[in-house]
Amino acid sequence: MVFKKISLTGTSPDSFDDAVDDAVSRAEETLDNLKWAEVEEMGVEIANAEQGRQYQAEVMVAFELEE
Amino acid sequence: MVFKKISLTGTSPDSFDDAVDDAVSRAEETLDNLKWAEVEEMGVEIANAEQGRQYQAEVMVAFELEE
Amino acid sequence: MVFKKISLTGTSPDSFDDAVDDAVSRAEETLDNLKWAEVEEMGVEIANAEQGRQYQAEVMVAFELEE
Amino acid sequence: MVFKKISLTGTSPDSFDDAVDDAVSRAEETLDNLKWAEVEEMGVEIANAEQGRQYQAEVMVAFELEE
Amino acid sequence: MVFKKISLTGTSPDSFDDAVDDAVSRAEETLDNLKWAEVEEMGVEIANAEQGRQYQAEVMVAFELEE
Amino acid sequence: MVFKKISLTGTSPDSFDDAVDDAVSRAEETLDNLKWAEVEEMGVEIANAEQGRQYQAEVMVAFELEE
Amino acid sequence: MVFKKISLTGTSPDSFDDAVDDAVSRAEETLDNLKWAEVEEMGVEIANAEQGRQYQAEVMVAFELEE
Amino acid sequence: MVFKKISLTGTSPDSFDDAVDDAVSRAEETLDNLKWAEVEEMGVEIANAEQGRQYQAEVMVAFELEE
Amino acid sequence: MVFKKISLTGTSPDSFDDAVDDAVSRAEETLDNLKWAEVEEMGVEIANAEQGRQYQAEVMVAFELEE
Amino acid sequence: MVFKKISLTGTSPDSFDDAVDDAVSRAEETLDNLKWAEVEEMGVEIANAEQGRQYQAEVMVAFELEE
Amino acid sequence: MVFKKISLTGTSPDSFDDAVDDAVSRAEETLDNLKWAEVEEMGVEIANAEQGRQYQAEVMVAFELEE
Amino acid sequence: MVFKKISLTGTSPDSFDDAVDDAVSRAEETLDNLKWAEVEEMGVEIANAEQGRQYQAEVMVAFELEE
Repeated sequence: MVFKKISLTGTSPDSFDDAVDDAVSRAEETLDNLKWAEVEEMGVEIANAEQGRQYQAEVMVAFELEE
Repeated sequence: MVFKKISLTGTSPDSFDDAVDDAVSRAEETLDNLKWAEVEEMGVEIANAEQGRQYQAEVMVAFELEE
Repeated sequence: MVFKKISLTGTSPDSFDDAVDDAVSRAEETLDNLKWAEVEEMGVEIANAEQGRQYQAEVMVAFELEE
Repeated sequence: MVFKKISLTGTSPDSFDDAVDDAVSRAEETLDNLKWAEVEEMGVEIANAEQGRQYQAEVMVAFELEE
Repeated sequence: MVFKKISLTGTSPDSFDDAVDDAVSRAEETLDNLKWAEVEEMGVEIANAEQGRQYQAEVMVAFELEE
Repeated sequence: MVFKKISLTGTSPDSFDDAVDDAVSRAEETLDNLKWAEVEEMGVEIANAEQGRQYQAEVMVAFELEE
Repeated sequence: MVFKKISLTGTSPDSFDDAVDDAVSRAEETLDNLKWAEVEEMGVEIANAEQGRQYQAEVMVAFELEE
Repeated sequence: MVFKKISLTGTSPDSFDDAVDDAVSRAEETLDNLKWAEVEEMGVEIANAEQGRQYQAEVMVAFELEE
Repeated sequence: MVFKKISLTGTSPDSFDDAVDDAVSRAEETLDNLKWAEVEEMGVEIANAEQGRQYQAEVMVAFELEE
Repeated sequence: MVFKKISLTGTSPDSFDDAVDDAVSRAEETLDNLKWAEVEEMGVEIANAEQGRQYQAEVMVAFELEE
Repeated sequence: MVFKKISLTGTSPDSFDDAVDDAVSRAEETLDNLKWAEVEEMGVEIANAEQGRQYQAEVMVAFELEE
Repeated sequence: MVFKKISLTGTSPDSFDDAVDDAVSRAEETLDNLKWAEVEEMGVEIANAEQGRQYQAEVMVAFELEE
């Protein structure tokens, strides 16, 4: 049994929780056997966010590889 | 005056804030003189969470020891 | 183009998101050209917070310096 | 010459060495030009491992990209 | 559901794997609901080890607290 | 032979050395077989310390568990 | 909006700047929407570099995923 | 004798060396008694850099405070 | 309530405790509402210290900002 | 009593334990009063290892200096 | 101009300051051109210290190499 | 096969690349079998550098020990 981890950074105009969910949901679109996620970093984009602050969360998402 | 820190990991189906509260509340059940808590790590359990994602937060909880 | 970063710790009785916003908003009161913010640490003040738990978030706030 | 690193977590019921080998061997199945591997973290899964402890090793595996 | 982590350093005259097992086994003697363990540090005691080298492994052992 | 480590934060109005001693001495009151201590963090409480600065030292104290 | 980060190590016989560019340029060959890069580690390969020193730079390259 | 450190991030279209110099030079414009600088992080802005890549270097700049 | 942290490095010909005090005292000269300080690094200047060794302590000093 | 630490990286075609032993044994050939060793990093050389994988372990070896 | 750093751990029955001095003084016995020292870790040996606690400080000592 | 690593800090009035080369070249003067180097830290000496800024790079240089 081998797991692979990839780094995804989710974003949300509302909260860090949503930003984490954004990343995990995006992974679920293309990957099977998602197991867990680890929050690496959190930040706020201020200048380039057209409509106010953008919450960002970098997450390592782990999934099990097919044998 | 001496403080002791213990490592508790709270969980919640809703948010990281709730997961932190879960750990602090559990500490309050059995410990007096809680002073502060420090968030160490945050993650999401996906596979084993029967009803969707489980938000987890590892927290160091500090309390003052009786003289 | 040079950016400067300062360390602000925001607080909130409600959530870590609000504590981060508290710090960013305080910076916006006195600084122009805010660009981004990085969450460094999060914690909960329990003892000294008269009205229940106080969520704290230490944030590095980056802004662009005038030429 | 450019190398790419991916994060694989190998597992073994026997030892950490085998868990590292498990990850490197899995990489060799699908990747050419493997160069080196770096051990990032090691742990033991106790609860969910049906047949006793499962040794886990997170490894960054580096391989050379085709020009 | 709340987990607690404690820091145990196992020792062995033979190998790091055994030192990790030593710590996990000692935890199993007095704790229920062991879930996982994380290897923090590994070292070798040379001078004070009467019969040759002593392999040491510091491990954080996580177990689920009773509700 | 298994060692356990606990996190104690000692305090002193005089110096960091005394704050470290404060933590180790408190451990000696309730624990046998103390082996070593590791200084993790040091700080100064200014606001809440009625009589001037309070030096604080967070220390991991290691002791050998009974077989 | 979700970003993905991958780890590439560029090389150059001339300088660390070139090694970073080497990695970013290789990413541009196969990826769209490159946003930013973070330098993780830098080193020099001496023994195996046929024609003198080889400067290496490990870089996390971030790009925006298609919706 | 007390030193103060501030965090400046310099930028350059050409190299990391220039980006570090950019930050130190900006500090020299407004501060006396500059003593030393420490490179904290380096990165490359790709998307928002109108004319190609922008090299960035975050630097802690130390200067001596007037007595 | 928002706190700001600044980085000050105090010095002393006598001890690290004095070097920490040196930094905190300098902050008290110009800042109100000092709350706490965190020791980041400690070192000894040998060559440039005219009269023997100079103990240095880098400290993050936190103070509460006016509303 | 003063200890000195040096960094040695041992290698083995068989296991990480052997690689650690390789480094400690080499230190014993030329140094007296070896006290302890700390494992810093572990990795696997794949490409350049003529006969299969080579396990590597970087170890800080501490020995007591003659008075 | 090239500096070399070596790792020395000084000890003292009295204080961490003395333990740091112990290491720097030992370096001065055999090395010229000492420039500076950086405190890496501090701890207390309890069990093996015949006459009470032994304060230990691991220090990186830097000195300039002859051209 | 055992490698040893030593810490050298190279300097240059021109660039960080030159400062790294300065350290590696100095090692080549007295050591055989140099294998690789790892950049640990980079900084700029401003005050004491008579002729303008001095770029410094701390490098761990690895070489193979004779059997």
